[in-house]
Amino acid sequence: MGQLKYGSDLYDELTGIVQRENIHSGRIQGIGATTHAVVAYYDQKARKYNPIEFNGGMEIINLHGNVSMRDGKPFVHAHILLGDPQGKAVGGHLMPGTKLFACELFIEEFEGEEFMRSEEEQTGLFLWKSGFLNLSEE
Amino acid sequence: MGQLKYGSDLYDELTGIVQRENIHSGRIQGIGATTHAVVAYYDQKARKYNPIEFNGGMEIINLHGNVSMRDGKPFVHAHILLGDPQGKAVGGHLMPGTKLFACELFIEEFEGEEFMRSEEEQTGLFLWKSGFLNLSEE
Amino acid sequence: MGQLKYGSDLYDELTGIVQRENIHSGRIQGIGATTHAVVAYYDQKARKYNPIEFNGGMEIINLHGNVSMRDGKPFVHAHILLGDPQGKAVGGHLMPGTKLFACELFIEEFEGEEFMRSEEEQTGLFLWKSGFLNLSEE
Repeated sequence: MGQLKYGSDLYDELTGIVQRENIHSGRIQGIGATTHAVVAYYDQKARKYNPIEFNGGMEIINLHGNVSMRDGKPFVHAHILLGDPQGKAVGGHLMPGTKLFACELFIEEFEGEEFMRSEEEQTGLFLWKSGFLNLSEE
Repeated sequence: MGQLKYGSDLYDELTGIVQRENIHSGRIQGIGATTHAVVAYYDQKARKYNPIEFNGGMEIINLHGNVSMRDGKPFVHAHILLGDPQGKAVGGHLMPGTKLFACELFIEEFEGEEFMRSEEEQTGLFLWKSGFLNLSEE
Repeated sequence: MGQLKYGSDLYDELTGIVQRENIHSGRIQGIGATTHAVVAYYDQKARKYNPIEFNGGMEIINLHGNVSMRDGKPFVHAHILLGDPQGKAVGGHLMPGTKLFACELFIEEFEGEEFMRSEEEQTGLFLWKSGFLNLSEE
């Protein structure tokens, strides 16, 4: 549990923390506010992330993500939900470039199995090589 | 922590996992993307769930739910939030029929007291017979 | 894990529970429905919370918050996301005045370091005096 600094880049801070603390597997959650936000929508046909920017102060209604390994390093995958001055909610895949007004976070570290990301053909995404997949086949 | 398969039905997969793993009490969280989604809004006066469908690729900005017992079996109650290509957020009560593009999940199993759902008169919902209710009366 | 009563005030109930149970540090999550909701957007320039009200039945797509200490008492900071009959999502900072139709909650208590809120000059918010801040400087 902790907070991030005014003006910091949310995605870069999260990545910095999990790499510095050497968290190989974990969960991230938070609430707060941004002064500028960059999220992305994954175009499933074109197989690419399209960035969407939100200028001005927004509430971080919530932030959710996980920590796993990609290219041998702790890697953050997070989705963020923002609220505008009228309460309208917008969000997507968290990108670098999101600047914080304030952010209160939970980061949990898990023990046990590591999850390694690698490119997966069907979706074009970097997914895990293991997980519940087998459960759904048993 | 794990992922679900491309093309699977999110609600049915979650139910399948908690029943197969015999999880009587737990918490579910996740992020991902859908190719088609079905959520519901509960009409508090008519006492029924109205389904709402979202075609085409959407981000799962987040998924939250709990596991408890209903009719003697593990039962999933979850709410899902989706983001469209412009980042606009929509969501509600997760229904069967939601097809996954990708989904990264946390499922936690709790020990201790079991929560049993049964129909509750005032709301028409299947709520728990125990919980914090007493706390708020002490 | 538990539920709150029909008709209760969500913010007041949460505050009542954490103060009665003497939870100094924790995490709150939930899903449910409201009959009336009051959220706020923090105007970063004017440094004040502007309330936004949502009449009528809304789904609580999710509720997230933390528990820390303010003025020597357990204090709840939570953000809520609501869904209307068309699934449109709105939300912000949870305020008193939000009345419940139903709510299923997780409240987790943490041990260890306490987080104390005090007014912070740059944002005008009551933030914590400790946390990850140092991590991002190491």
